[in-house]
Amino acid sequence: MHFASDNTSPVPPQVLEAVIEANHGYAMPYGADAIFAEVQDRLRRIFEAPGAAVYLVATGTAANALALACLCPPWATVFCHRNAHVEEDECGAPEFYTGGSKLTLIDGAHAKMTAAALEQAIGFAARAGVHNVQPGAVSLTNATEAGTVYSSAEVAEICAVARGAGLPVHLDGARFANALAATAASPAELTWKAGVDILCFGGTKNGLMGAEAVIIFDPEKAWEFELRRKRGGHLFSKHRYLSAQMAAYLDDDLWLKLAARANAAAARLSAGIAALEGARLLHPTEANAVFAAWPRKGHAAAQAAGAQYYLWPMDQSMEGPDDEPLSARLVCSWSTTDEDVDRFLNVVAG
Amino acid sequence: MHFASDNTSPVPPQVLEAVIEANHGYAMPYGADAIFAEVQDRLRRIFEAPGAAVYLVATGTAANALALACLCPPWATVFCHRNAHVEEDECGAPEFYTGGSKLTLIDGAHAKMTAAALEQAIGFAARAGVHNVQPGAVSLTNATEAGTVYSSAEVAEICAVARGAGLPVHLDGARFANALAATAASPAELTWKAGVDILCFGGTKNGLMGAEAVIIFDPEKAWEFELRRKRGGHLFSKHRYLSAQMAAYLDDDLWLKLAARANAAAARLSAGIAALEGARLLHPTEANAVFAAWPRKGHAAAQAAGAQYYLWPMDQSMEGPDDEPLSARLVCSWSTTDEDVDRFLNVVAG
Amino acid sequence: MHFASDNTSPVPPQVLEAVIEANHGYAMPYGADAIFAEVQDRLRRIFEAPGAAVYLVATGTAANALALACLCPPWATVFCHRNAHVEEDECGAPEFYTGGSKLTLIDGAHAKMTAAALEQAIGFAARAGVHNVQPGAVSLTNATEAGTVYSSAEVAEICAVARGAGLPVHLDGARFANALAATAASPAELTWKAGVDILCFGGTKNGLMGAEAVIIFDPEKAWEFELRRKRGGHLFSKHRYLSAQMAAYLDDDLWLKLAARANAAAARLSAGIAALEGARLLHPTEANAVFAAWPRKGHAAAQAAGAQYYLWPMDQSMEGPDDEPLSARLVCSWSTTDEDVDRFLNVVAG
Amino acid sequence: MHFASDNTSPVPPQVLEAVIEANHGYAMPYGADAIFAEVQDRLRRIFEAPGAAVYLVATGTAANALALACLCPPWATVFCHRNAHVEEDECGAPEFYTGGSKLTLIDGAHAKMTAAALEQAIGFAARAGVHNVQPGAVSLTNATEAGTVYSSAEVAEICAVARGAGLPVHLDGARFANALAATAASPAELTWKAGVDILCFGGTKNGLMGAEAVIIFDPEKAWEFELRRKRGGHLFSKHRYLSAQMAAYLDDDLWLKLAARANAAAARLSAGIAALEGARLLHPTEANAVFAAWPRKGHAAAQAAGAQYYLWPMDQSMEGPDDEPLSARLVCSWSTTDEDVDRFLNVVAG
Repeated sequence: MHFASDNTSPVPPQVLEAVIEANHGYAMPYGADAIFAEVQDRLRRIFEAPGAAVYLVATGTAANALALACLCPPWATVFCHRNAHVEEDECGAPEFYTGGSKLTLIDGAHAKMTAAALEQAIGFAARAGVHNVQPGAVSLTNATEAGTVYSSAEVAEICAVARGAGLPVHLDGARFANALAATAASPAELTWKAGVDILCFGGTKNGLMGAEAVIIFDPEKAWEFELRRKRGGHLFSKHRYLSAQMAAYLDDDLWLKLAARANAAAARLSAGIAALEGARLLHPTEANAVFAAWPRKGHAAAQAAGAQYYLWPMDQSMEGPDDEPLSARLVCSWSTTDEDVDRFLNVVAG
Repeated sequence: MHFASDNTSPVPPQVLEAVIEANHGYAMPYGADAIFAEVQDRLRRIFEAPGAAVYLVATGTAANALALACLCPPWATVFCHRNAHVEEDECGAPEFYTGGSKLTLIDGAHAKMTAAALEQAIGFAARAGVHNVQPGAVSLTNATEAGTVYSSAEVAEICAVARGAGLPVHLDGARFANALAATAASPAELTWKAGVDILCFGGTKNGLMGAEAVIIFDPEKAWEFELRRKRGGHLFSKHRYLSAQMAAYLDDDLWLKLAARANAAAARLSAGIAALEGARLLHPTEANAVFAAWPRKGHAAAQAAGAQYYLWPMDQSMEGPDDEPLSARLVCSWSTTDEDVDRFLNVVAG
Repeated sequence: MHFASDNTSPVPPQVLEAVIEANHGYAMPYGADAIFAEVQDRLRRIFEAPGAAVYLVATGTAANALALACLCPPWATVFCHRNAHVEEDECGAPEFYTGGSKLTLIDGAHAKMTAAALEQAIGFAARAGVHNVQPGAVSLTNATEAGTVYSSAEVAEICAVARGAGLPVHLDGARFANALAATAASPAELTWKAGVDILCFGGTKNGLMGAEAVIIFDPEKAWEFELRRKRGGHLFSKHRYLSAQMAAYLDDDLWLKLAARANAAAARLSAGIAALEGARLLHPTEANAVFAAWPRKGHAAAQAAGAQYYLWPMDQSMEGPDDEPLSARLVCSWSTTDEDVDRFLNVVAG
Repeated sequence: MHFASDNTSPVPPQVLEAVIEANHGYAMPYGADAIFAEVQDRLRRIFEAPGAAVYLVATGTAANALALACLCPPWATVFCHRNAHVEEDECGAPEFYTGGSKLTLIDGAHAKMTAAALEQAIGFAARAGVHNVQPGAVSLTNATEAGTVYSSAEVAEICAVARGAGLPVHLDGARFANALAATAASPAELTWKAGVDILCFGGTKNGLMGAEAVIIFDPEKAWEFELRRKRGGHLFSKHRYLSAQMAAYLDDDLWLKLAARANAAAARLSAGIAALEGARLLHPTEANAVFAAWPRKGHAAAQAAGAQYYLWPMDQSMEGPDDEPLSARLVCSWSTTDEDVDRFLNVVAG
């Protein structure tokens, strides 16, 4: 009953097999390994973007911060949702890598920004000439921090607002596979065809040890990205081990299968919780995370049984009336089993 | 005949076995994995430093830049040798992480800084009050970029100068194992007992996929380091895979055995080259790299036979008199075999 | 009828006379001039802070950003009101000088932060350990951007919350003289006795050409400030001309007299507007700025007569029903005359 | 006998008169004052550069650092002479404003860089691809820190090397007037016609209280400069007082007259010293500074008589043999009189 995060899971065997396979003989460093050429090629084909620049780094925070630094100058601001990972969970990495930009926080239900809210925020930011920071870039997260998903139409609508203001768009896709698995869109439709400039294509949360691809659809920024990556300490000498992970991930659609499995587990969990007495969902369950509230006694039972997940927000007290609902976040991953989900539901139901 | 760099080698089987072993079940992220507790414990014991703070990152550039940022404020300068990796090979990572400090370059034979040269440079830097950047920190590299090694007495002498000026000392130990294997000193003697404040304890060049430990002997800076690491995008969520690499590295003195093997290969190679007609060593071979010059025809033969190494500096021409000596760098690693070395020597001897 | 800003006013004759007086013979540069020693001494006496470090810079943005950089590390956040000058009018200077910190925006009526709102914001910011930026500093503005004033009791209450969380307090006093003139407090009571660590003591908006004092009550940060100032390009070589301005400002309580005059003009203007038909004040008029709404026809009359002030927010339209109220900001300065105020009131009254 | 620096001098009366003149009535802030429009116009005419962007700041360090930040990205290096003000006297302001670039130091007699030395340094810097910082910009100083002057032909030769490598050129013209007065070149010939991209046109060292113009010959960088200036805290609200200084400076060629006077004083001083027994010049005296060595007893006599200047380097001892030569720097300014020079020469001659 491990629902604390998708980063507590192990790695599927295919990934380690690919790493073992890569460990023969000598390989050129820094991305000159043969596996990486293959990875680039595959990602370009998957995204129907033959001219895209493709890079690998080991963490999502690195991918996001490096991408934003290529899009937003120091004297500008990144428009993002108030709950975005770049705002809440990266200890200021975007501010560090951009050289001191701001993040302008936009509210919106279920961790989703609307095009209208973005338009208003950009308008406000552009008001005072040289005296305030300039509009710089837009950052979307898909799937969102609330387990919801932007459709390609929604992404396109937001990107259109960004374009109208001359702003590039970054997509934090730490859970891009989960988003894609939840929509009927193609990878291209959910990204550059909708107007996205740089995609951080997550691997770690969806099954890798630590590998993320950064896909720069307009490669004009590619060299700048390479320099920023090196300078940030994110260029791997023994790059083949990143490449091998990503190759296994793309092989035979593993990435989509892993995400589909995680999403299905979350759907099962969500439906089960929603059916509990006194329970309700806080956000629609569209990807691999469930946000729900249920009575304290159900939480007590779950915790007693060793279930791992977070009360969300974390500062709720386990002391109090039995029937008072407490809200929680539960994250499923590729390794979540139906048995685990059902056992959890039984425990909470009491 | 792969002597291009120690970063082109594969990883010894023990490391991958440890990673496979670590890949069972769920593990807490961000350094809360059980293996990491063990790694911290072992490194503290190896270095006789029970109070030291220990962290893992994936690249040497990250380790160095984060460490320097904890030691040197933005308005100060890091004293290092002109050939230091932090100066020549990190695309300004120290400047980026410190927030715009300088590096003051010190000359010295065989990529080694002398205490006297350091003292003079510090004196000069302290001359002009608020108008110039302040002395900030000293950065040593051991083993050096020229394949030479500082003895513990030399480290102590340099650290004494640093202390006298109130400056902390960073040790870039990307090849620390090679340095240690070359001296009779203990890990503690070659670091904190000699006056080192932070050691970047390399793993990648000596056999890991990508894992370096940062050992902060005075843990007062530990929390700052953690925040800088997160903000730099260097905190791994699936941290267990870093931990497992480092655990295997420390297990049964693997790190020392790997380094000893690399050093021995370099010694064999060095002796062989020195015995060639028209050849001479450019630096003493004390660790795992050989710097030597020999006639152009020997290089032509080596290249024709597929040997991989760099002319050093790289801009020397293969066109010219047969007997003219060209200088080269050859790096051995844990996986360099005697056969490879001997074959290379035979080829060059013609 | 110049109410656009207090920065459009000329300088009182005493200031230029002091500059002329200072222009005799040679003077040591960079703050070693004799006038500056006098200025330091006087400010220490005025603030009953014999140990305070005192510096001069030429702009309020420089003063604020340098002060915040001394108080808030790069990985932390500055808590300030959403309408603070540091947030809205400095193009990211705090983010630049701190090396990439955040500003956490706190709402509050009349541009004033409450202690309770601050406490809540700090609590939220401290929630997630290494993953989010840390609480760094608190920044207050007195008088505020809405022309309101914090009493010394209010400042003390806010500082107590900051202290409780271990945070230092910066006071943006670009209009500190106006705030002081509006309260019964002493300079010390309104600053360090209430818990303020660094005061940016404004001169420019209250009558100088360009001179602000930074008063660091705990001088431990003094040397860091000097280095940051130099590095920011804010250390004046011909420093005597800054000193002379500030000396004239302090002489014979000129600073308080100028502020009292500006406040009195604003009070007269405020009372007059409040008495107009269809008009209302948007914020209490406590210092030298008036925020009020009155019918569009009154604005049309004022503009036709050449009155200078801003509709606030600026994007309101002069096209529309005559009786619809539009809101405006009017700023008085030391040079605003009763005649000007009365003429304006007559014009608006129609 | 004030030869410590050109920044210890007072301001010529015309400058203060212009400030007094500017102090009437209200003026729009932030560069929207009428005097500034005039200043821009005049500088464009003086430099035959109708399209140039012109800005004012108060210090030379600010001018230089802002200009370099517009020319050199964070991952690049600025090529400059080892004795350049940007390297030695700005406490890392270029590193701060660029976001962490390097300065690559070039040696050269009399503080002058040669085109050949620059070419070699650029070649070396471009060697290692993504692993080292990239060539970024070239920074010249004219007149130099050694009181020497680049001719327009020398500037052109250096700029040609820069252009050939795709690098822009910054000219630190803190003493540009002194350089111009020493050559037969026109302002345009000594700057953009020779290939300079941005000129920092000094005013302060040559007679102003604190005002420097930044002239951006290709105005594409103008808006970036404005944002960086604001963000750096260098945009003056009461801008008219900067404008008035610069207007007076340009009026009736005052700037050239002041520089000519300073240069003439230095020439007189230089000739006098050179004629002393046991004395010799260390650099040719081409602008307003004299670098010379003469016997210790002459220094003792000068100091006893109250002469102000620096031993250069500063760490020479006044204790020692009477006849041993000590080297010194003496700087003349617009206010240096022949009487002062002659008196000094008499004193030193003994």
